[in-house]
Amino acid sequence: MADITIAVDCMGGDFGPSVTIPAIKKVLSNTLALSARLNSKSLSLSFHLYGDIQQLEMQLAENNLQGQHNIQLFPSSNDVLMSDVPSDALKNKKQSSMRLALEAVRDGRAHACVSAGNTGALMAISRFVLKMLPGIGRPAIISALPTLKGGQVYLLDLGANVECNEHRLAQFAIMGNELCRGLDGIEFPRVSLLNVGEEEIKGSERLRQAAKLINEIPNLNYVGFSEANQLFSGDFEVVVTDGFTGNNVLKASEGLSHFLMERIKHAFSKSWWTRLIGLLAKPVMNLVREQVNPEKYNGACLLGLRGIVIKSHGSANIDATSYAIEEAIIQAEQGVPAKIRQQLSLIDN
Amino acid sequence: MADITIAVDCMGGDFGPSVTIPAIKKVLSNTLALSARLNSKSLSLSFHLYGDIQQLEMQLAENNLQGQHNIQLFPSSNDVLMSDVPSDALKNKKQSSMRLALEAVRDGRAHACVSAGNTGALMAISRFVLKMLPGIGRPAIISALPTLKGGQVYLLDLGANVECNEHRLAQFAIMGNELCRGLDGIEFPRVSLLNVGEEEIKGSERLRQAAKLINEIPNLNYVGFSEANQLFSGDFEVVVTDGFTGNNVLKASEGLSHFLMERIKHAFSKSWWTRLIGLLAKPVMNLVREQVNPEKYNGACLLGLRGIVIKSHGSANIDATSYAIEEAIIQAEQGVPAKIRQQLSLIDN
Repeated sequence: MADITIAVDCMGGDFGPSVTIPAIKKVLSNTLALSARLNSKSLSLSFHLYGDIQQLEMQLAENNLQGQHNIQLFPSSNDVLMSDVPSDALKNKKQSSMRLALEAVRDGRAHACVSAGNTGALMAISRFVLKMLPGIGRPAIISALPTLKGGQVYLLDLGANVECNEHRLAQFAIMGNELCRGLDGIEFPRVSLLNVGEEEIKGSERLRQAAKLINEIPNLNYVGFSEANQLFSGDFEVVVTDGFTGNNVLKASEGLSHFLMERIKHAFSKSWWTRLIGLLAKPVMNLVREQVNPEKYNGACLLGLRGIVIKSHGSANIDATSYAIEEAIIQAEQGVPAKIRQQLSLIDN
Repeated sequence: MADITIAVDCMGGDFGPSVTIPAIKKVLSNTLALSARLNSKSLSLSFHLYGDIQQLEMQLAENNLQGQHNIQLFPSSNDVLMSDVPSDALKNKKQSSMRLALEAVRDGRAHACVSAGNTGALMAISRFVLKMLPGIGRPAIISALPTLKGGQVYLLDLGANVECNEHRLAQFAIMGNELCRGLDGIEFPRVSLLNVGEEEIKGSERLRQAAKLINEIPNLNYVGFSEANQLFSGDFEVVVTDGFTGNNVLKASEGLSHFLMERIKHAFSKSWWTRLIGLLAKPVMNLVREQVNPEKYNGACLLGLRGIVIKSHGSANIDATSYAIEEAIIQAEQGVPAKIRQQLSLIDN
């Protein structure tokens, strides 16, 4: 039997407890399916909620969750705002819901932390409170994107490390590989290094060195260079790049996705006939929009910490937030940070 | 009166003369509109066509262009293939249509060269035949992308220079600025530097130095950092980045565009009702597909050479090829390389 406790920063994000509490309810109602997915006979979930007690109690009552023995409330004050400068949040917000939730992980009272709060502050406070694994300087941000084959691909780093040497890129490969194994149960994920061409002679010397290092990592299925147009192909489970490129690739995808949806809306608005077709096509287009918007692919993870921290999107809705919480549960059950630590010890840093 | 001669590598690309000759016909029939756009009272166009004479003559006959005084044919042999290694093409293909067309520009017999051939070979042969402007090591590749406001944005570098220092990025800003001024007639294009955030403290030291250099360039409207999700917003006319990032951003956009179109097709195929709506919506969706596919946004330019070289997409159709030829004409009429050279002389390299 697996007992998993998740610390939830209930005050982060655009909607606070009005989204986090219903999302927890959804996860609790999904416990059986989660148990099956984890091959865990009886998964037992507990939640530590950090935030404004009055708001939390109100939302628990609205969701018929008051008095549940597996939900505990902890009061916070002076919470982290989306506009806070990370260093200020780290210095001044020691009783915030974000800080207290991370301390619960540090002290072993919870297995993982989920927050939809300020990303920079979450990075800074996580790093300070939880500390990094040996040889890792800063957390890497990883997230999944949808693919043509119906699966998903993990892309890292998404912006935490704008400049990376070959050792850092090899660390990303290990971390992405272990995360994918833990979350998706794929024994040997296909790991690729993003480049401007597939040929081995392409790109910078640093990338060729990184390819060599990654190729030598034991038990890692390195499949060579990939190009960004292959990202959504379903040919890879993990794609590694520096934070500058990863951030730009992700944001360009968001920008293009928005652009395309706007062009489609515009094209349907041209005449009464196209408007009519547009109206009929709306449910189909909404489905696509929901499926593919990278912003909605929720549950980025901060990797390389001595604990599990999941960053839910600031504007995540109840469904998206429940996915982020489930990701935290699966990572906790699989012991992802310990596996990453073990694999990291096998390479030079 | 402006007399412009364009050297066309008719054998490059997937379709050779069967696309280039009809495209030339289209450009010729559009001469009046081009004259108006260029405020040139009487634009006089000539074409030097390089390729297999028999194929060229056949296509000219099919397009009722045989015997025109402003179209001259020049035989080529051992043409560059899409699969050629650039250094081999440079060394061994001295009578190819690509090489001869570039030599026409070098010798002043033509004002610009258009080719749909092997990009790497075109880069290598252009650099060898035409030489670079003072202070420039390699050509930069620039192309336009559509924006939400209906205009376009130029992105460079798209992959020729995978590693760039701050001086190189400042050169890109000058080259992109002059190209946009020449092609789109915008007096002060808004030039931005791609970064992982808009704030001045974001990104690497190299980027902050580049921002400083670009900000000091005379007569250039530098508007600060941008993020890749703003690329398609219409808020900028020129976005500068290193070739590694630019290539990945462009290819990720191509990949996502393909992915989205496939998801939409899939969503419409779910039931007889959605299939019916999909059938009705097809003309609208085809229009959007045509408008937004970055691959179809034709006419990338190799900048930094002592001559004008336009790279048409290998799979470009007649319309797309005609745009690439018109781009060459406008650049020639505006004297873009001379303007770039003049601006480059104002900064340290």
